[in-house]
Amino acid sequence: MLDIRALEIPDVLEITPRKFGDDRGFFSETFQRDRLKAGGVAADWMQDNQSYSAEAFTLRGLHYQEPPFAQDKLVRVLRGAILDVAVDIRRGSPTYGQWVSLEVTADKFNQILVPAGFAHGFLTLVPDTEVFYKVSAPYSGAHDRSIRFDDPALGIDWPLGGRTPVLSAKDEAAPLLADVANPFVFEG
Amino acid sequence: MLDIRALEIPDVLEITPRKFGDDRGFFSETFQRDRLKAGGVAADWMQDNQSYSAEAFTLRGLHYQEPPFAQDKLVRVLRGAILDVAVDIRRGSPTYGQWVSLEVTADKFNQILVPAGFAHGFLTLVPDTEVFYKVSAPYSGAHDRSIRFDDPALGIDWPLGGRTPVLSAKDEAAPLLADVANPFVFEG
Ligand SMILES: Cc1cn([C@H]2C[C@H](O)[C@@H](COP(=O)(O)OP(=O)(O)O[C@H]3O[C@@H](C)[C@H](O)[C@@H](O)[C@H]3O)O2)c(=O)[nH]c1=O
Ligand SMILES: Cc1cn([C@H]2C[C@H](O)[C@@H](COP(=O)(O)OP(=O)(O)O[C@H]3O[C@@H](C)[C@H](O)[C@@H](O)[C@H]3O)O2)c(=O)[nH]c1=O
Repeated sequence: MLDIRALEIPDVLEITPRKFGDDRGFFSETFQRDRLKAGGVAADWMQDNQSYSAEAFTLRGLHYQEPPFAQDKLVRVLRGAILDVAVDIRRGSPTYGQWVSLEVTADKFNQILVPAGFAHGFLTLVPDTEVFYKVSAPYSGAHDRSIRFDDPALGIDWPLGGRTPVLSAKDEAAPLLADVANPFVFEG
Repeated sequence: MLDIRALEIPDVLEITPRKFGDDRGFFSETFQRDRLKAGGVAADWMQDNQSYSAEAFTLRGLHYQEPPFAQDKLVRVLRGAILDVAVDIRRGSPTYGQWVSLEVTADKFNQILVPAGFAHGFLTLVPDTEVFYKVSAPYSGAHDRSIRFDDPALGIDWPLGGRTPVLSAKDEAAPLLADVANPFVFEG
């Protein structure tokens, strides 16, 4: 009932729920805690977030929350399309500083699981994009951190085609990964 | 942060989360378990459902699951608009057999809380309507029950303007409330 696939950094997963089509339209269980847990993804999913970005090439990220508010994130797209990016910032991880990306779109009906210990961001690929994501810890502005999307040490290949993305003031002023007090340690 | 309003049957609630607009678009916590609980709505939200109805005047309902799979439902609309209806079927309830309705739309960004012990259904008011709802118990086909949307004993005023709604075969063949083994008892 649930397609789960590890990405190049294996703690990051693509999850695709099943759709039942009929004469009326379709039905889908887009999240089912126990089935996800049976598939190896257990988290205390206590909050749902939704963001709307009017323009293509809006970039939100790279973000994470420090412990004790570190969040697993389960991200999907209700309308439009994004390139979603997860950066491993767990010190001691064999893939420390590496990133993976996945196109997540309303049409594909896929989801990406970004665990705590990763910085997360996305670029909208079309206008009017709505992203929906579940998180495993509440929002805490005091623990919210931003890293530059274009940190040269990360070298993320955002498909901007030379454009400057639409950014929040916070993301515009974000520091490099080397300049943040990174609290995450790889646990194996 | 959360607007909660009791409807005419006070166990049924309208809930409207806050939206933060900015230059990029908006952000909203569409669900926050602990805040909802502080507002008096505690449930074990373990599944998210999404249905898409292509046509206006598609009617899904009236449905409920029997215990031990009875479900609280928290219903919102991602695209389009519905008239959502909750029917009190708790034997001994002062509002037994009565119904309440609420327009739930993507624009209003509102939600309706339909507790266990209510039969639930909705009519799409426009084409291409996507409904998203959280439930507090897993799906069980063996416990899934349907009651006729046009049961004369209920007298629900669906705004069909004389049209025949688009129904599933299951809903087309549904029995009257008087003919189902109704397991719900009002607990005060
Ligand atoms: C993330 C968040 C923000 N807010 C508020 C704070 C601001 O007023 C407004 C916008 O917040 P921003 O941090 O600018 O939104 P944003 O969309 O840039 O932030 C998000 O980016 C994603 C890539 C991450 O995965 C998310 O975890 C989050 O960091 O919403 C909450 O109330 N709750 C939340 O959970
Ligand atoms: C409700 C549901 C259906 N399904 C499957 C069974 C069918 O193959 C397909 C469509 O199911 P149906 O019952 O016809 O969908 P539906 O959209 O008519 O049913 C829904 O109507 C709402 C008004 C109620 O609030 C919901 O609780 C549910 O009953 O999806 C699940 O896998 N999980 C579920 O949770």
